[in-house]
Amino acid sequence: MSTPPEWVQHAVFYQIFPDRFARSGQVGVHDTVTLKPWGTPPEEQGFQGGDLYGIIQHLDYLQDLGVTALYLNPIFASAANHRYHTYDYYTVDPLLGGNEALQDLLGAAHRRDMRVVLDGVFNHASRGFWPFHHVLENGIDSPYADWFHLHGEPLRPYGPEGEPANYEGWAGLRGLPEFNTDHPPVRDFLFDVATHWIEQGIDGWRLDVPGEIDDADFWRTFRTKVKDVNPDAYLCGEIWTHADRWLQGDQFDGVMNYPLTDSLFGFVAHDTIRGFAHQHFDFTPRTGTQFAEEVLDTLTRYPQAIQHAQLNLLDSHDTPRVLHTLGGSVEALRMAVLFQMTMPGAPCIYYGDEIGLQSAGDPHCREAFPWHNESIWHTGLLAFYQQATALRHEHPVLRTGRVEVLSATERQVVFRRQTAEREALIAFNTADNLATLTVPAPALNHAAYQPVWPPDRTAGLRASDPSVQLPERSAAVWMSPASAS
Amino acid sequence: MSTPPEWVQHAVFYQIFPDRFARSGQVGVHDTVTLKPWGTPPEEQGFQGGDLYGIIQHLDYLQDLGVTALYLNPIFASAANHRYHTYDYYTVDPLLGGNEALQDLLGAAHRRDMRVVLDGVFNHASRGFWPFHHVLENGIDSPYADWFHLHGEPLRPYGPEGEPANYEGWAGLRGLPEFNTDHPPVRDFLFDVATHWIEQGIDGWRLDVPGEIDDADFWRTFRTKVKDVNPDAYLCGEIWTHADRWLQGDQFDGVMNYPLTDSLFGFVAHDTIRGFAHQHFDFTPRTGTQFAEEVLDTLTRYPQAIQHAQLNLLDSHDTPRVLHTLGGSVEALRMAVLFQMTMPGAPCIYYGDEIGLQSAGDPHCREAFPWHNESIWHTGLLAFYQQATALRHEHPVLRTGRVEVLSATERQVVFRRQTAEREALIAFNTADNLATLTVPAPALNHAAYQPVWPPDRTAGLRASDPSVQLPERSAAVWMSPASAS
Repeated sequence: MSTPPEWVQHAVFYQIFPDRFARSGQVGVHDTVTLKPWGTPPEEQGFQGGDLYGIIQHLDYLQDLGVTALYLNPIFASAANHRYHTYDYYTVDPLLGGNEALQDLLGAAHRRDMRVVLDGVFNHASRGFWPFHHVLENGIDSPYADWFHLHGEPLRPYGPEGEPANYEGWAGLRGLPEFNTDHPPVRDFLFDVATHWIEQGIDGWRLDVPGEIDDADFWRTFRTKVKDVNPDAYLCGEIWTHADRWLQGDQFDGVMNYPLTDSLFGFVAHDTIRGFAHQHFDFTPRTGTQFAEEVLDTLTRYPQAIQHAQLNLLDSHDTPRVLHTLGGSVEALRMAVLFQMTMPGAPCIYYGDEIGLQSAGDPHCREAFPWHNESIWHTGLLAFYQQATALRHEHPVLRTGRVEVLSATERQVVFRRQTAEREALIAFNTADNLATLTVPAPALNHAAYQPVWPPDRTAGLRASDPSVQLPERSAAVWMSPASAS
Repeated sequence: MSTPPEWVQHAVFYQIFPDRFARSGQVGVHDTVTLKPWGTPPEEQGFQGGDLYGIIQHLDYLQDLGVTALYLNPIFASAANHRYHTYDYYTVDPLLGGNEALQDLLGAAHRRDMRVVLDGVFNHASRGFWPFHHVLENGIDSPYADWFHLHGEPLRPYGPEGEPANYEGWAGLRGLPEFNTDHPPVRDFLFDVATHWIEQGIDGWRLDVPGEIDDADFWRTFRTKVKDVNPDAYLCGEIWTHADRWLQGDQFDGVMNYPLTDSLFGFVAHDTIRGFAHQHFDFTPRTGTQFAEEVLDTLTRYPQAIQHAQLNLLDSHDTPRVLHTLGGSVEALRMAVLFQMTMPGAPCIYYGDEIGLQSAGDPHCREAFPWHNESIWHTGLLAFYQQATALRHEHPVLRTGRVEVLSATERQVVFRRQTAEREALIAFNTADNLATLTVPAPALNHAAYQPVWPPDRTAGLRASDPSVQLPERSAAVWMSPASAS
């Protein structure tokens, strides 16, 4: 049992799909292979040659955006452009620049106090992972046969199409053979991978489909071993639902907070939201009342330390981009981002959202970042993101305060964040007309609140007259005086 | 153009099939996998867990045997117990102890002035080799598609059985995808592997099926790059025939001298030899006259420096064990070994021959060395081997002298080795009865020759009476006085 690392609650994450973020021109291996041109439509599979040096080249950009932590999709050697099919857990993919490039990235990021969290794929490997390759070559006589779940011979790794794989693969896929995590050497192997990279300097693991390893003891041991190396390492599970069983302090520090995302989208984009077929997503309109209830339920079901270590994301490589789901409404997006920046849990920006990319789900959402074509950037949105992250960084109460709902109506909600020193009021109006919100005066601890958002807002809020006007589809934030109350 | 390394002519090689020579108990990985018990019949495929530390443990034994150089069958990561299906050229197989074990072996061997030559498999890789795995996963769109010779999609790496592989594989085998060595990055990769391990301290490469890379420029560049790192590195090609095109000084230092083996067996075991179906082998009886002619033809077709750098072997992992081929005749084996030890070119002992192993061809000849069962060792033969290598080491003329045939009859042959300082006469009688040999006196430069073989022989040879008696199926060696002639 241990609490999540302190730094997470203060972080603003940026998720990068490494093949598609930036190509540095510094990876010698690129000259030896045939890559797709940068900007090839992501509907075409293949590698476009993004690499870790490319990330280093853009750290200024990320720092200007207010980013303080990177979450990278898998970077270990893999034959898939998303690299969830690992073939070598100890080697950063040569196309990404190899192990040296990671060391360079860690050094460059850490010098800026920026953290780097990697994607840990511990449930399954690939057909090229050496023990599985061994099994493919030697069948059940292989020294590594116990590492997987085999069901008869000959194994059918690449077909024929009509017949199912005769080994366990994630989602039944032949390309993703699942580990037998009951086999002690497999556990030792995976724990060694996990601790090896922590020793190499990474700041934590985002854990891919950890629910598939349905074994609390595995994850408890995993946590203990990782935290023994670095108590400040962050462990974030890819759990799409409420995650009570994993968030008791003995397994993960937080999860990808998709339930919050779902509620949020239904509120801010109640009239523009696009459906998305996913077993755990709803994406249906919510009233402010419903939204406020769901938010409190999602946040407060966990101890406060865990609430603050959740990863609050709007989208990822697994979903449509947020602007797509919100039906293209930039106003809804701004409200969603402002919610991220004012609530407990670390906000995570999916690369390119900040310049207005709005593609649909996988594979569309894995497009090359258009460094080559700045004319398509939504620069106003980029400036907004920079201001919104700055707001969060400027006011500790937005990161550490407890959360309450002060009022909730059909289209308006007012939240409060509060610490011993400071109090913030955050109001949303998702209606398509100007609304007058009345904050319940008895709840207010201060006589007056200064406007801090939007940046150009001048109207304060007084307990003696707690009515404020909020334009359509917008949000506002007021802050109690900086002195102790 | 360069001459072969000086050390080769003085070396006695010992060929080791690493999975089957010795298991040290020092490889942690062995506790994580299921190995076959040591001594499992080699007809059963699978890994028995021989490792490089096991070789280190037996260096005393090898030194006592007179061995001064090791030739190891492949040791890089592979899912085949013979490891000719490489999946990682930069990693010594974890089952063998990994890269550290190789460093330890190199250190231990070099401290004893023992060289270590590795098996270089540069014509083909395996289905688990990362660029080929890439191609299997991504088809012709893979960044690595140009690294191989692909003929259509989808690729058929593991079947179906009725249909041929749709890519080039060695001998048409799906498991051994051939490199496209015309592709510059592939050449660079292979050259880098070659020089990397020379830099790591190995003493040369035995080159697997180099004739399949039908490209003199490739091998010239290969030689130049290797010799640039270490001019003393030995390059020995696996060529089963006469090898004129490769032995001009610009490609290999020597080849596996199978033609000599073939002639030798036909002579020493003319009445016991077993046939062996192989495209390049004859294994038919030879008279002494035929044998002598073939030996001179095989040896003297190359410049003397090359003659002395040939690898003179009696068998290998690819053939039946010598004692099998010789029909179980230990007498024939002794003559064959004595021939090896008295002729130009480095003798090579295939592990276990020296204790009388006599199994048939692959897979039988790849059995575990019976450290666990010394009762089956032919200890008399072992002592003979020790004496025979000592003979070679004691007399430089046997390593460096030029070779002549002094007489050849149906069942007897007398050779001479000669330097400016010394002269050796080597006589063979393969008949099954005592023979009187008469060395042609006019050819002799000395009045008297001292017996040096067999160790218990006391009868010398005088130019004035150059008749000697030689027991059935035996050999003898006389040496001119040590002082200058």
